[in-house]
Amino acid sequence: MIRTTEQLPGKVYLIGAGPGAVDLITVRGMRLLAQADIVFADALVDAGMRDYCPAAQWVEVGKRCGRHSTAQHFINKQLVDAARKHAVVVRLKGGDPLLFGRADEELTALEAAGIDCEVVPGITAALAAAATLKQPLTKRGVARSVTLATQAKADATADAPGLPVDGTVVLYMGRDQSVQLAQQLIAAGRTPQTPVAIVEAASTPRERHLALTLAQMAQGLAQAWIDREQPCLLLVGDALAPRAAAALPLQAAS
Amino acid sequence: MIRTTEQLPGKVYLIGAGPGAVDLITVRGMRLLAQADIVFADALVDAGMRDYCPAAQWVEVGKRCGRHSTAQHFINKQLVDAARKHAVVVRLKGGDPLLFGRADEELTALEAAGIDCEVVPGITAALAAAATLKQPLTKRGVARSVTLATQAKADATADAPGLPVDGTVVLYMGRDQSVQLAQQLIAAGRTPQTPVAIVEAASTPRERHLALTLAQMAQGLAQAWIDREQPCLLLVGDALAPRAAAALPLQAAS
Repeated sequence: MIRTTEQLPGKVYLIGAGPGAVDLITVRGMRLLAQADIVFADALVDAGMRDYCPAAQWVEVGKRCGRHSTAQHFINKQLVDAARKHAVVVRLKGGDPLLFGRADEELTALEAAGIDCEVVPGITAALAAAATLKQPLTKRGVARSVTLATQAKADATADAPGLPVDGTVVLYMGRDQSVQLAQQLIAAGRTPQTPVAIVEAASTPRERHLALTLAQMAQGLAQAWIDREQPCLLLVGDALAPRAAAALPLQAAS
Repeated sequence: MIRTTEQLPGKVYLIGAGPGAVDLITVRGMRLLAQADIVFADALVDAGMRDYCPAAQWVEVGKRCGRHSTAQHFINKQLVDAARKHAVVVRLKGGDPLLFGRADEELTALEAAGIDCEVVPGITAALAAAATLKQPLTKRGVARSVTLATQAKADATADAPGLPVDGTVVLYMGRDQSVQLAQQLIAAGRTPQTPVAIVEAASTPRERHLALTLAQMAQGLAQAWIDREQPCLLLVGDALAPRAAAALPLQAAS
């Protein structure tokens, strides 16, 4: 794209790449990628997304399952610098930018530098996990809320605040916290038979899932099953009960 | 599409249309619409989505802001009947099918009839609202959870269960519950200065938003502002504080 100095600085689009599958990005996200001059992509974003922007420069940044990370302040600087050289800059982030995504820090840096920015939402992993399971996150008469949460490791020994006593709970990055989460939820009054689903690498070819109960998760069954190399979600609540059970009263009546 | 009897029944895709804007559906959803023989769309879904499936039969079902609704059991029957006549049936639902969407009831009916089904997630309105506001739903050191909730009118005088004492809270369809929600959250220990954002018709041409405090919402300011004809979200929590305020400590130090 031919640009004049007057058109700069460019605009930065913070785009949610979605949960993993290349076709679970939004149509808007895909179209903006096609216009991008440069794309700063989370290392976890599927490289297949490059097909949406073959002409753009592709720069991998950010975390890869905790093993490597580009410092956030350096990413911020890269975005500001890129907007001074390019008309259309994309920051492509796994899931949704504004949910567990640290987009706020990038927006702060861009706004401080006077650079125009726009956010395009993405499918967050909890919704992809529910779609895989074909189980609702909310259900009439059973769960009218869902809480999406994450816990810092530093807090792993403290009580978990903010986990409601009813409704569905989805814990992101819950790999090392499954036993503690189950214990906390049982202590808060949930029955040990409450259904739990673990979904790993939702919507990708590596996707796996496991159904168990809160009691089994408290005993360590989820922890033993989870692949530490994959992102995983823990979903807890009565909305996750298999539909077969819900249909039983009808069968009994026939 | 030419089909033989052997290929039937067809498959039903429950697809999230997203929050409103035609280009906030996923790429997968758009591509499946292009293959659809018949589409059962929520009346709230933008008619512009028909451009994705010009050859398909388009049937409007479901609620339109509570004024009219096709009974759920009738929608279930329509889906089952359609799958016996068509290869690709799409049920296009506002937002995400598994979050406040009653997809569970449709899946139950389809599974009972032995019909194959698949769910394609959609952008839920809370994520579109956050994108509009450019405000995070979670924020390091401030809010590490977000609770998405709705309340039935029948419960409007009871205590709201499941609303956590910290983290961000997003109330869907909160039009008539803003005063009560604010009072409950203040009673639960949130400070009256807690930031609130109201977002109406997120991502559509009719989108509007308002920033206020929990104290102001308790006094009825949100209720007076909300257009009863539009879908609206109430977002509450310290993560919604304007970034200018967050930057103040830096300014004070210079």
